[in-house]
Amino acid sequence: MNEFGLIERFVACFDVAPSPAGPGDDCAVLPAQGPTCVTTDALVEDVHFTRATFSFEDIGHKALAVNLSDLAAMGARPTWFTVALGLPPDVGARELVRVGRGMSALARRHGAKLIGGNVTRSPQLTLTLTVCGALEGLPLLRSGAQPGDLIFVSGPLGEAAAGLAVTNPALRRAQRRPSPHLAFAARARPWVHAAIDVSDGLAQDLQHVCKASQVGAELDSSKVPVSARLLRAVGPRRALSFALRGGEDYVLLVTAPARHRERLTALGALEVGVISARAGLRMDGARLTGPLGFTHR
Amino acid sequence: MNEFGLIERFVACFDVAPSPAGPGDDCAVLPAQGPTCVTTDALVEDVHFTRATFSFEDIGHKALAVNLSDLAAMGARPTWFTVALGLPPDVGARELVRVGRGMSALARRHGAKLIGGNVTRSPQLTLTLTVCGALEGLPLLRSGAQPGDLIFVSGPLGEAAAGLAVTNPALRRAQRRPSPHLAFAARARPWVHAAIDVSDGLAQDLQHVCKASQVGAELDSSKVPVSARLLRAVGPRRALSFALRGGEDYVLLVTAPARHRERLTALGALEVGVISARAGLRMDGARLTGPLGFTHR
Repeated sequence: MNEFGLIERFVACFDVAPSPAGPGDDCAVLPAQGPTCVTTDALVEDVHFTRATFSFEDIGHKALAVNLSDLAAMGARPTWFTVALGLPPDVGARELVRVGRGMSALARRHGAKLIGGNVTRSPQLTLTLTVCGALEGLPLLRSGAQPGDLIFVSGPLGEAAAGLAVTNPALRRAQRRPSPHLAFAARARPWVHAAIDVSDGLAQDLQHVCKASQVGAELDSSKVPVSARLLRAVGPRRALSFALRGGEDYVLLVTAPARHRERLTALGALEVGVISARAGLRMDGARLTGPLGFTHR
Repeated sequence: MNEFGLIERFVACFDVAPSPAGPGDDCAVLPAQGPTCVTTDALVEDVHFTRATFSFEDIGHKALAVNLSDLAAMGARPTWFTVALGLPPDVGARELVRVGRGMSALARRHGAKLIGGNVTRSPQLTLTLTVCGALEGLPLLRSGAQPGDLIFVSGPLGEAAAGLAVTNPALRRAQRRPSPHLAFAARARPWVHAAIDVSDGLAQDLQHVCKASQVGAELDSSKVPVSARLLRAVGPRRALSFALRGGEDYVLLVTAPARHRERLTALGALEVGVISARAGLRMDGARLTGPLGFTHR
């Protein structure tokens, strides 16, 4: 099947608008939009996934999920996305449709519309998505954290990284099927000063917030949330390490004034520390040193 | 140098707005926009270019040029773009800055602003861009061609494909450094019924127009424009073949009512045939058969 046939089969997995609002012309044509957020992120075979551990549906799901997580971190509501596919010779229509199904199920759940894309040959399977969201009100920025803000995360940490290291079905699933925390972001945003999604590990992503906000942070190791199943699988010391320095949890990290603690806790936010005026990242009073988390290269 | 250092060096090649309007947060934040066009296209090493024939500057130029050409085909004016980079271990800061320079020179010329991107490891150098343009008035669609319309192209054809096949510096340059025909599109658009950019060869891209418009087309081989240097390099028979079935010329194909012939000719458009009510693609009265052009897989 040639390029055009493959594109047709992939697009058929999605609820698309007729061209030119959807795929089919040189560009997609969009009506006027209010303020928007745009992000782009790629999944590359044997870098971000292997076919031994991911189904084609998982690959489609995760490629969109990691991008939606970036929208969540800004407080934006998903609107449209494009998909550029790099396909090796052994990925044909059948496999591509499985990728499409994994992706479209998640797209539908969050109201994101496929508007266009591209297919090319490639030595390994590659998915590069660009995703756009509507912004109602001000964006949640990395640069908004203030000394005295409490630091919260929107879910337990470390499972996705542990899922790469140990054989445990639930942890593996956390690796393959992250859920973008869009609903949490939509409800928490009125009370929040700063936000980022935890894609590279708590320590590294918190450091991004600290740098952008010109502040420091103090973490309390006893508060860093790890799930019971992660504790059972790897013990407390490794669980904390995965939570701090692992990556790909795709929960949100937010900072908010202490007076909003109860509101945020009621939304499921878990307090892990406090923003300080003193530069640097500390845990239980000691400076965090060494590589902070995952880098993509 | 790690991911974050590489991103900084690449971004420094461009005129970017401070975050969050430019790169640096989870998403770029854009103000309200009027109607827009969006496209995405990728260049993959050893599929679309080799390092033996392309400089890093060429690679950066071409990755943006092929996307800008899609905007030209819609009659849109470039506004912003994102760049997702897949970098093999031997592409470091020095090479990346060369890619950035090639890309930013073209971006500046056409008023396109880098707003964000992504860097990941990859076995081979890959650039996936998503580009957006502002649309003033109606878009130029593939589906607008009408029987009796004349078919024009905005420049000579076949050089880029010939540049892959023969050793000739000028033809090689046409391969490496396509110019998006944005200025032509902006001036021609009031008179045009349909448009597409010629990325896959005249025959195949004309067929896309015919399918979308539910019409046929008659080409006149004596009018298909080929440059004197292409004729000198490969002779008339191969020149016509490269023009028809080669690809990557990135000129525009437009159709327009015969009464606008002089206006379009004055803008540099070159007449190559006529749209017919009868389905199918014909040249000099005979049906065009065989593979029509380049497919990307």
